[in-house]
Amino acid sequence: MSAPVKVAVVGASGYSGAELLRLLLRHPNAELVAVTSRSLAGKALSKQFPRFRGVGVADSLTFTAPDAADLKEAGAEIAFLALPHGVSAEYAIPLLKLGLKVIDLSADFRLRSPVLYEEFYGHAHPAPELLNEAVYALPEVRGDAIQAARLIACPGCYPTSILLPLIPLLKAGLLAEAPISVSSMSGATGAGRKESIPLLFCEVQNSVRSYSVPSHRHLSEIGQELALAAGRDEVKLTFVPHLVPTYAGICTTTFAQLKPGATVADVRTALHAAYDHQPFVRLLGENQSPDTKNVTGTNFIDIGWAFDARAGQLILMSTEDNIGKGASGQAVQNMNLICGFEPTAGLLNI
Amino acid sequence: MSAPVKVAVVGASGYSGAELLRLLLRHPNAELVAVTSRSLAGKALSKQFPRFRGVGVADSLTFTAPDAADLKEAGAEIAFLALPHGVSAEYAIPLLKLGLKVIDLSADFRLRSPVLYEEFYGHAHPAPELLNEAVYALPEVRGDAIQAARLIACPGCYPTSILLPLIPLLKAGLLAEAPISVSSMSGATGAGRKESIPLLFCEVQNSVRSYSVPSHRHLSEIGQELALAAGRDEVKLTFVPHLVPTYAGICTTTFAQLKPGATVADVRTALHAAYDHQPFVRLLGENQSPDTKNVTGTNFIDIGWAFDARAGQLILMSTEDNIGKGASGQAVQNMNLICGFEPTAGLLNI
Amino acid sequence: MSAPVKVAVVGASGYSGAELLRLLLRHPNAELVAVTSRSLAGKALSKQFPRFRGVGVADSLTFTAPDAADLKEAGAEIAFLALPHGVSAEYAIPLLKLGLKVIDLSADFRLRSPVLYEEFYGHAHPAPELLNEAVYALPEVRGDAIQAARLIACPGCYPTSILLPLIPLLKAGLLAEAPISVSSMSGATGAGRKESIPLLFCEVQNSVRSYSVPSHRHLSEIGQELALAAGRDEVKLTFVPHLVPTYAGICTTTFAQLKPGATVADVRTALHAAYDHQPFVRLLGENQSPDTKNVTGTNFIDIGWAFDARAGQLILMSTEDNIGKGASGQAVQNMNLICGFEPTAGLLNI
Amino acid sequence: MSAPVKVAVVGASGYSGAELLRLLLRHPNAELVAVTSRSLAGKALSKQFPRFRGVGVADSLTFTAPDAADLKEAGAEIAFLALPHGVSAEYAIPLLKLGLKVIDLSADFRLRSPVLYEEFYGHAHPAPELLNEAVYALPEVRGDAIQAARLIACPGCYPTSILLPLIPLLKAGLLAEAPISVSSMSGATGAGRKESIPLLFCEVQNSVRSYSVPSHRHLSEIGQELALAAGRDEVKLTFVPHLVPTYAGICTTTFAQLKPGATVADVRTALHAAYDHQPFVRLLGENQSPDTKNVTGTNFIDIGWAFDARAGQLILMSTEDNIGKGASGQAVQNMNLICGFEPTAGLLNI
Repeated sequence: MSAPVKVAVVGASGYSGAELLRLLLRHPNAELVAVTSRSLAGKALSKQFPRFRGVGVADSLTFTAPDAADLKEAGAEIAFLALPHGVSAEYAIPLLKLGLKVIDLSADFRLRSPVLYEEFYGHAHPAPELLNEAVYALPEVRGDAIQAARLIACPGCYPTSILLPLIPLLKAGLLAEAPISVSSMSGATGAGRKESIPLLFCEVQNSVRSYSVPSHRHLSEIGQELALAAGRDEVKLTFVPHLVPTYAGICTTTFAQLKPGATVADVRTALHAAYDHQPFVRLLGENQSPDTKNVTGTNFIDIGWAFDARAGQLILMSTEDNIGKGASGQAVQNMNLICGFEPTAGLLNI
Repeated sequence: MSAPVKVAVVGASGYSGAELLRLLLRHPNAELVAVTSRSLAGKALSKQFPRFRGVGVADSLTFTAPDAADLKEAGAEIAFLALPHGVSAEYAIPLLKLGLKVIDLSADFRLRSPVLYEEFYGHAHPAPELLNEAVYALPEVRGDAIQAARLIACPGCYPTSILLPLIPLLKAGLLAEAPISVSSMSGATGAGRKESIPLLFCEVQNSVRSYSVPSHRHLSEIGQELALAAGRDEVKLTFVPHLVPTYAGICTTTFAQLKPGATVADVRTALHAAYDHQPFVRLLGENQSPDTKNVTGTNFIDIGWAFDARAGQLILMSTEDNIGKGASGQAVQNMNLICGFEPTAGLLNI
Repeated sequence: MSAPVKVAVVGASGYSGAELLRLLLRHPNAELVAVTSRSLAGKALSKQFPRFRGVGVADSLTFTAPDAADLKEAGAEIAFLALPHGVSAEYAIPLLKLGLKVIDLSADFRLRSPVLYEEFYGHAHPAPELLNEAVYALPEVRGDAIQAARLIACPGCYPTSILLPLIPLLKAGLLAEAPISVSSMSGATGAGRKESIPLLFCEVQNSVRSYSVPSHRHLSEIGQELALAAGRDEVKLTFVPHLVPTYAGICTTTFAQLKPGATVADVRTALHAAYDHQPFVRLLGENQSPDTKNVTGTNFIDIGWAFDARAGQLILMSTEDNIGKGASGQAVQNMNLICGFEPTAGLLNI
Repeated sequence: MSAPVKVAVVGASGYSGAELLRLLLRHPNAELVAVTSRSLAGKALSKQFPRFRGVGVADSLTFTAPDAADLKEAGAEIAFLALPHGVSAEYAIPLLKLGLKVIDLSADFRLRSPVLYEEFYGHAHPAPELLNEAVYALPEVRGDAIQAARLIACPGCYPTSILLPLIPLLKAGLLAEAPISVSSMSGATGAGRKESIPLLFCEVQNSVRSYSVPSHRHLSEIGQELALAAGRDEVKLTFVPHLVPTYAGICTTTFAQLKPGATVADVRTALHAAYDHQPFVRLLGENQSPDTKNVTGTNFIDIGWAFDARAGQLILMSTEDNIGKGASGQAVQNMNLICGFEPTAGLLNI
């Protein structure tokens, strides 16, 4: 077996960061050589995350302040950025210059257009020159480009659950141009680990609520990728996310109209053609509802579909772990691709 | 103050039945004179429901086997039926004959058409001659008919949350004929109180999942009422319910297309015209998401709306308690109407 | 019926404050004339608490900055203080001077000894001259004193659940002097409504943990009251609280040793003698475990007991709502006593 | 690396069985060759447990009816029994005769005394001749005996959490003879996967309640092992378990009295001496509360302790996963010992 790749995690105090550490601490081909966090500098990993105590380097590795040169000196070949939107870009630049590959979990490099970025994120893009180079890294869609990339933009959690069922259907030309409607439900890790009264246990446990209606930021990357898949200027889509009282897991239900002549059998064919050889996409079949409890803690996305003959509408149903396949699992899946590891390495724990 | 109305509850072992008892035990104008349950006969109310111990007649009233003549003899003027679908009808007939008014919480009298009933419920309707007399009892829509009725069909939980936002818009002719898409999330009381592995705590608490896709039974009454409101033969609608890990509460998100020329301002106007004088409909305004935690345990339905200008779609958002406004609260609201009580009597606890 | 008492709530942004508002908005004998909160001044009650929208004065009453003269001018006869420990005392003084009665939910007036207060709360008591006047207001234990008081110290949530089962046994001389051990589990409202990462949904929902071991502040008032009941200088007691993932509810399990000669029948007799005529104490019997779900949202405390013959130990089990009987419900119960209202007025909702 | 051991799981429809499969499907040194369940015979593993779809043999292996000869023929060298109490014994006998080693997760072989078994389990022991041979398999306490055993009795979930903190203290003679009090809280997987109304989501999610007071069956094995550790005929202990609304995890709080002269420093020394070289016991230190969320899904037990100087009592606090270290994780840990594998093989996933 070849030597493991040396990796660093920049900004690991949140839920995606912790999930990334969880996966990397036990990855058979990766060695975690540095973890940074301005606020936690000097603290051992397992002091911050008592769950990791006694596992791998969790007791011996301490957080350091983030500094590109230090990461290079620690031997890191790949840096994962688990930072807030707008912050990632400034860390990516020096790391790339020093020759590291960068796998970014934020939204900073997901859009091709700096104009669209500014519209949805409210400020000018800090490194527009990198947008063309970055790869919007859905491994099942863009595997070749990922293998060759040095700057990886991991898709958002909602977008992953929405795009994977829709892209094969749009590529196959099965959907009409009527607006698509998407209702997603996410566990609370999706809202982040921050001091916030609306995210308290007592505010969430008895609550189901939509939010960011009608313009969640993820609409921008969803629209970009759907248009690319459809070969059209635009694919109209309405997206309503909901917060539900679970730790993790996204359940997405999508309503779309088939083109005249297209059938649910065509849907089945297109999905199987796209995903039968993909280890992390599990196609459940017609009228089969996926369940978040079967995917949380994993890198799987489960997909079912149904046709409502009365109303003439297609229903797509997908579940994934928002911090797994929707974030950190997918980031590790991308690392496996970049490094030529077994695609499932470190990702089959259930 | 006039004498209280004497009421009986037939079949009170489930969650809707318990909620009904909770409301009736404390209702200022109702006297609970009988509670029936074949399996619980002889047991005191508060023995079965320890939460009610020490409150009103809960310690003194015991369950009896269900018998129409006994209820009549106990003085009951109104009987609430909290029975499974298909069973209610056979109990309603003798009660009506004996002169009681019947408020049924099951689906047995919700449909006008025995053919549609058979299609969705899988067996011939046991009392088709009563279908024309029964009133589909949304108090905000059909108040006059309810006051005059002796057989009340309380709407289903999902239908209530879907119909109340849509009916004023269809009546006002604001919606295009494109299929409407509805995604609803319900707490687990909606699935009933029965021995069932999929409803165990360990199967639900970490789970978000759709079910009954694509043909939930509630589609039948939703379709009937929307067509009536629209004055059309049919209103196309796709409905996907989800089970989420809360005790109670429904959150419904509806996607629809406005007719050319109609605006979100018209939506606002139509909703306010319909509900400004209704004590249990709370209109939250544009881009305001309702939250189930504000309505559970109450008889309120909260409604918000938004217009997605990019995709050109209207979004309606509503929350209610599935066993409150979606079942037992609404049943008591109907009783208040029938008896001429204050509309909010016994229903403003928060 | 006599005129309702006019009440004010000082500091109502937390969970106990909201529960107090919930009870007072619907109390048949109370009129809520003022609600204060420095941070919420100018906001309508129902804007802050959307659950209350459309109920009583919730839409018309707005928060004001806390000022004793203003409360007096608004006509308030009783002021409830739902403030942090250490802050209540300074508000109590001017209110008492203006002739209002004060019902304090904080710990500020629970201890007789300013020395003990300083030991447990870390600062000198701000109004030690009031400590002798204040009544530690367990209505079932000290009803007469409460009726005559103008300064009420509502007991803590844990202490209420611990004291009510133990006091009759200590008074009857049934317990040995061996240390008593208490394990309590509380829902998360007990920890308050504050921006705090350890109280986030994602940190609580999958977590059971003890805290403040071995010296929770509530030990001070528990010790004071047990010693009084026993007529001894000291009653030794070890107390370990746990945070469990529920919104509300305390479950307390107490281990004690009977005096030689005392039996579990004596325990039963003492408890029944103390509480048979108390409307909010429900004695479940021997080997009967109470359940928090039967008391949340109510003012009841449910008590069971058992004798472990193998180990020779008595087990006491009690459940209550930490913000109900453990805080705001008890505060309203005290108001009913002070005002001579029906003891259960406004408190029998289930 | 040596060939993997071939294992079978008998009775895998419950939560412990599923956890066992989860661990064995990914164990680097084990090959799952058979899984039995009378009710599921013929069904693929991943059909019953959709979470396992696409992982290892989960899609290819099907349940078979339980038959000792079949398991032998399938090549199984070790059989795990995840069966109800009373059923395991009859399966163990033929398996042992055929030369398999048996790791039993039930209570059938935990007690040395058939009399005690009958007292607590209500029927005569089905194979009393095996009781002396079976090893009560706490790996940290009885490692040598486990390595040599062919019949392993895995300890109960509560007992593991209670015994591991207490045994070193009893062995070191640090505890007085006063009765020990134990309060444990368990997640709902501990109650099993069975059709039961009290275990429904709606009955558990808002509930904290004790049960089986005062004589839970686990008292028998706890008493046996404590007496052995103390070298006394009996160690008095009162045990109260509680059901709390989590999927998994046990939090145990133990109250004990130190012998005159013994100190909390002695406690620390004894615990470190016993566990510093044990990979799955994590000692958190004095006044440190463990949290179930750090151990669920793992094989770790976290232990903290405190001394309440006021009452003169020692507090021990421990957390583990009831189906991990408390059942299936410990079973695999025992397999590792028996087979001479790395002690942590397959057990360090976090």
